[in-house]
Amino acid sequence: MTALTPVDASFELSKVDPSATPGVDNRKRAESELAKNFDELGSLQEKLYAESKFGGQRSVLLVLQAMDTAGKGGIVRHVVGGVDPQGIHLHAFKAPTDEEKAHDFLWRVRKELPQPGIIGVFDRSHYEDVLIHRVRGFSTPEVIEERYGIIADFEKELVATGTTIIKVMLHISSDEQKSRLQARLEKPEKNWKFNPGDIDERQHWAAYQEAYQIALTRTSTPDSPWYVVPGNHKWYARWAVQGLLLHALRGLDPAYPAVDYDVAAQKKRLAAT
Amino acid sequence: MTALTPVDASFELSKVDPSATPGVDNRKRAESELAKNFDELGSLQEKLYAESKFGGQRSVLLVLQAMDTAGKGGIVRHVVGGVDPQGIHLHAFKAPTDEEKAHDFLWRVRKELPQPGIIGVFDRSHYEDVLIHRVRGFSTPEVIEERYGIIADFEKELVATGTTIIKVMLHISSDEQKSRLQARLEKPEKNWKFNPGDIDERQHWAAYQEAYQIALTRTSTPDSPWYVVPGNHKWYARWAVQGLLLHALRGLDPAYPAVDYDVAAQKKRLAAT
Repeated sequence: MTALTPVDASFELSKVDPSATPGVDNRKRAESELAKNFDELGSLQEKLYAESKFGGQRSVLLVLQAMDTAGKGGIVRHVVGGVDPQGIHLHAFKAPTDEEKAHDFLWRVRKELPQPGIIGVFDRSHYEDVLIHRVRGFSTPEVIEERYGIIADFEKELVATGTTIIKVMLHISSDEQKSRLQARLEKPEKNWKFNPGDIDERQHWAAYQEAYQIALTRTSTPDSPWYVVPGNHKWYARWAVQGLLLHALRGLDPAYPAVDYDVAAQKKRLAAT
Repeated sequence: MTALTPVDASFELSKVDPSATPGVDNRKRAESELAKNFDELGSLQEKLYAESKFGGQRSVLLVLQAMDTAGKGGIVRHVVGGVDPQGIHLHAFKAPTDEEKAHDFLWRVRKELPQPGIIGVFDRSHYEDVLIHRVRGFSTPEVIEERYGIIADFEKELVATGTTIIKVMLHISSDEQKSRLQARLEKPEKNWKFNPGDIDERQHWAAYQEAYQIALTRTSTPDSPWYVVPGNHKWYARWAVQGLLLHALRGLDPAYPAVDYDVAAQKKRLAAT
């Protein structure tokens, strides 16, 4: 299980080593545990879903935020991909459309929340509205300041209605990003993953780190914690995020529900058909 | 590859043996091919997605229809689940909500169509509006008659805008359904999968077979074909549906796209950061 601790008020992003691997010291072990844990993760999710068929209201929401190339896609493919697609609601938040811009920033987010029994996965999220908005000046400082509180209230509401929230920032170093972008430019079959805009964003690296530092410390609460997952080693990040999901689901301890029909009576009805 | 042929005007559902396994004669081989083919399926989908990032408009839509317990869920878990979740848009159509009922029957379907580069998967679909609606009298015969034409026009429009459609009816026998429902009642950890309404539907078995016979022959076209996949053997249905998907994607022959930026210039820009 992961040795990561949630972000608290004294947290300093600049002190996290993106190459660290707390909790597991070698790739082989991490990969073998990742593979081994899929059955338990799938079984816990199925029970959560089963509960929801008989009144259960609980769901899980995994929020993924990161600089470009940090490995969100790999988490989705290699961690989330191990769960039955019927138990997952994945949504990737892109630059907002005109319709989305015409509403408050949580409007599009509310539409993608997981239903009971489901693990929701946000690839980017409402946190873009205090991250890129701060760095690129898309909103005024006053508006951004207000949003930290709006986000806290929103997440409190989600928790109160049965959603377990896990927020993950995948943390890579600037050098690691450079080498991953280089790989996308060097390998023709990876060229499509590169966007010249990635370099524009990269040029604001320090400002993004500052925006994350503020957003993480302002919005990490015991009920809606942020975890910073070192991402320079992809095998580590996958192991760690799976561990966070597994820990959350084990905590929920879902169980196959008591059904609201008479099993014996239905057996008789069925036998008569 | 599957030996299934698309439904045509002379097709008779009652002549399909739900226990047949055309194209592969044993479970071991089917399961080994299923596992082996995931890499190719994933790679083809990634290329389709890559194309879409540079103007590609093509997508795939897999429509799954079946009687209860026929194995739609297993297809999603074991066939679709082998593809990167980022490349899949899965939607399960349930009984329509009041809002959905206030619109035409394709309204909710249009909202769930796959974007370019994506494999859309419909667990049930607009075909419910000519299946259960016919059997249970939710719509008049005139309305249902009209819908076959509306569906044909709708699917023609999808094909014209770049969607490859594969429609699958998983076909089980009435006896097989009975024994699968019995299993759900007998095993406490499966009780949650059973719904007394399943027996109500089962009592209309013959009417459903007739509704399928009509819907399939009326709406199977060379561009939007129906396949009836024998479903009594789950291992066969999974192998066959994967084969249909694979065949469609091979036919599209997607390729990593030429990018619209100057790779050398971007390498220099990146090196300077």
